Amino acid sequence: MSVSAERTPSVNQPMCPSRLVLEHVTSRWGVLVLAALLERSYRFSELRRTIGGVSEKMLAQTLQTLERDGFVHRDAKPVIPPRVDYSLTPLGREAADQVWGLARWTERRVDAVHAAREAYDEARS
Amino acid sequence: MSVSAERTPSVNQPMCPSRLVLEHVTSRWGVLVLAALLERSYRFSELRRTIGGVSEKMLAQTLQTLERDGFVHRDAKPVIPPRVDYSLTPLGREAADQVWGLARWTERRVDAVHAAREAYDEARS
Repeated sequence: MSVSAERTPSVNQPMCPSRLVLEHVTSRWGVLVLAALLERSYRFSELRRTIGGVSEKMLAQTLQTLERDGFVHRDAKPVIPPRVDYSLTPLGREAADQVWGLARWTERRVDAVHAAREAYDEARS
Repeated sequence: MSVSAERTPSVNQPMCPSRLVLEHVTSRWGVLVLAALLERSYRFSELRRTIGGVSEKMLAQTLQTLERDGFVHRDAKPVIPPRVDYSLTPLGREAADQVWGLARWTERRVDAVHAAREAYDEARS
């Protein structure tokens, strides 16, 4: 097999591994976890309170996926009671920089989106 | 009700409308559609070929959601055979600027993610 068989990664290719990475970073809870951790490190329970609506199971699963991808560092402190802190790795910080901007943009522009939806629905009623 | 009842939008609030906007923009196909349209306008069939793996139904649904949110402009040309072009609105361009960077970052860093996963799996085997 020639070297050219190694294609440039493209998220538009369904089998390209970059698509799966994109899906982890943009997953419902992945976005919110990365954006929160860009501001500071969190303990599990704090993070769960910060990200409204996430279940314990989904948060644990999201953190594990992000840890395995090398985005999140899990620091289990040998203290009593046990204490686990989550923070971003340098790679995770890069990912979080991207999604943080997206999250803040969404909050800034939600009114414009609402106006667009009203116009859309009105034109079709 | 006092004015202060209108809270600042926050994607961390489960009922905040900004969270739903974020979910549309970061949906599996929404990300890829916005990133593709940032480069140029597309006809439906072209877009479907560009974004590997998307079904006709999912692409149509994604485009309709993004159109209703005010991100995508649908231009049905009165010609035979019918021709429909999709492009970004100025608001959609803002959203796409955010996700385009994320998509390209993912492609650039996929190897680092793979290395992290291998190290993670190795440490646990």
